[in-house]
Amino acid sequence: MKKENSAPTMKDVAREAGVALGTVSKVVNGLPVGDSYKARVEEAIKKLNYQVNSYAQGLKANKTYTVALLIPNTRDPFFGLLAFHINLALLKRKYRMLLLCTDSDSAQEQEYITMAQQNKVDGIIGLTYNPNLIIEENTPFVSIDRSLGSKIPCVACDNFAGGQLAAEKLSDLGCKKVAFLRVGSSLNNEPNKRKAGFENGCLSRSLEYEMKIINDGESFEQFVDFLKEHMKDGRLEFDGIFCVTDGLAHFTYNQLLALGLRVPEDVQLIGFDGTRYFGTSEYICSTIVQPVPEMAEMCVELLLQESMTTKPPLVCLPVTYAYGGTTLEPKFEE
Amino acid sequence: MKKENSAPTMKDVAREAGVALGTVSKVVNGLPVGDSYKARVEEAIKKLNYQVNSYAQGLKANKTYTVALLIPNTRDPFFGLLAFHINLALLKRKYRMLLLCTDSDSAQEQEYITMAQQNKVDGIIGLTYNPNLIIEENTPFVSIDRSLGSKIPCVACDNFAGGQLAAEKLSDLGCKKVAFLRVGSSLNNEPNKRKAGFENGCLSRSLEYEMKIINDGESFEQFVDFLKEHMKDGRLEFDGIFCVTDGLAHFTYNQLLALGLRVPEDVQLIGFDGTRYFGTSEYICSTIVQPVPEMAEMCVELLLQESMTTKPPLVCLPVTYAYGGTTLEPKFEE
Repeated sequence: MKKENSAPTMKDVAREAGVALGTVSKVVNGLPVGDSYKARVEEAIKKLNYQVNSYAQGLKANKTYTVALLIPNTRDPFFGLLAFHINLALLKRKYRMLLLCTDSDSAQEQEYITMAQQNKVDGIIGLTYNPNLIIEENTPFVSIDRSLGSKIPCVACDNFAGGQLAAEKLSDLGCKKVAFLRVGSSLNNEPNKRKAGFENGCLSRSLEYEMKIINDGESFEQFVDFLKEHMKDGRLEFDGIFCVTDGLAHFTYNQLLALGLRVPEDVQLIGFDGTRYFGTSEYICSTIVQPVPEMAEMCVELLLQESMTTKPPLVCLPVTYAYGGTTLEPKFEE
Repeated sequence: MKKENSAPTMKDVAREAGVALGTVSKVVNGLPVGDSYKARVEEAIKKLNYQVNSYAQGLKANKTYTVALLIPNTRDPFFGLLAFHINLALLKRKYRMLLLCTDSDSAQEQEYITMAQQNKVDGIIGLTYNPNLIIEENTPFVSIDRSLGSKIPCVACDNFAGGQLAAEKLSDLGCKKVAFLRVGSSLNNEPNKRKAGFENGCLSRSLEYEMKIINDGESFEQFVDFLKEHMKDGRLEFDGIFCVTDGLAHFTYNQLLALGLRVPEDVQLIGFDGTRYFGTSEYICSTIVQPVPEMAEMCVELLLQESMTTKPPLVCLPVTYAYGGTTLEPKFEE
């Protein structure tokens, strides 16, 4: 039974509407749900007089100067770099950072969000692939790379522009027929836009292209088969390849060598992320560089900015191209 | 003025003895200091009846289930991997982890140690190069790779055995004259033992060797000069090289190629750490692998084990050799 005088919670709304908690979460955070569900939730909110703002107010009064970072791991170089810069951005502002690597246990993510809601942390920055997160309205949360609803700011690099830039670069470097290799995600995340950007770039340059897309969790061997199918008389039909990540570009590089091809002389290769050897040394491949320090700063700014009443739902920060040995060398200063 | 009834602190001891706080810290933690300093500190401790155990007792009664990790950054692959596994080991035990990347600001390290002493965290795991850390007696602290005194457990891989294994491997793989390239540290840290282990291995196999050692912060160009000085008629005088880290091995690999040498046909190359492409893919070079998950578990075990009255001052965990393309391929199962 609900205690007297206590404000209604999202759980109460779910019970009243006869829907799952996740559905209420989606409605209050502006994510799409079926019309009939939406109507039931809105009716329940009205009936119970559910106050979506109560938490944010409570948090202001009771600061912990602690922020939680949810990230799959710090072993992957992109995640490790991101965690480092978010840590620096928080420390600069005298905030402490709790790290929760979620590779092992996605239930822990939900625990951390609950902790934020109980004011044990001032907010959360999350790069999460968990499709079932429940986030109370106005829990201070900034998402990286994936939109969790129109009311939760999402910070990403400009993935569309990055895909387009890759196509334009390959065209500028003399490629006539290119391929895009991608590991797709069923989640509606920002990196998926690399594909649309790449297609757009190819079309604008009248550059012929093919795509090979596999799903998350499927074997990279499908890419090997794709490459083999496009070999003719010891030559590859493509003279340029854009891979959706540097990790995939590195894998592809090894496959191309195994097929007896030279990189970049026979095939030019561009990855995405800006991964460097040992974090600070040269680029592992020619790549579209994500502006990680700027993304980290933006996450922290948006999270801690209390006076901002309307936060931007999506912030895309500019990417750059970097030469990393797998494309022809630039002839001029660029 | 000291308040009545409050227990004497390390600061009081320093004032009484007329020495710096760091000196008192060294004495209570069993680090070497000059005899006269030691005598003065011990006299002051006796006179003030300074109780070195007070903190540890306080901590037991007032748990936060939070541990701080001090680490230079999570951008370097070894640090990123270590942070990830320490995070997993703590989460498994329902502890939260504060991350403090200290690359930017070593003063922050001291702040975190003070926080631990004020019971805001239950303990600290630290991989630190700060030579002036002040750690109160019995602050729960586990150090990685560097001894901070006989009363603070230090966890490392078996660096001596790793150096020896590298020499033995190069010998087994047919090398006749080898080189050791090292970036030395003035701190008395565990990775320094790689050198002694390597020399020992060379001597036991009657393997001829030379060493090139530069100091932290000096330019890697000195290694390039060293290699050039040992070129004769387009051949290098060494047929094997052991580098103190994978990062240096990667650098050296590129230099050898630039000199027109083939790796591993002309020169075999072994690094140290066990760095993999993208954290989980293949090894970047043939390498001595640090047992990072086991090191992380050991750090957490030693930190949280309260019933253990005498903690081991140094724990060295076994290393292994891994083939990573820069040595001749193993002919048999090893």
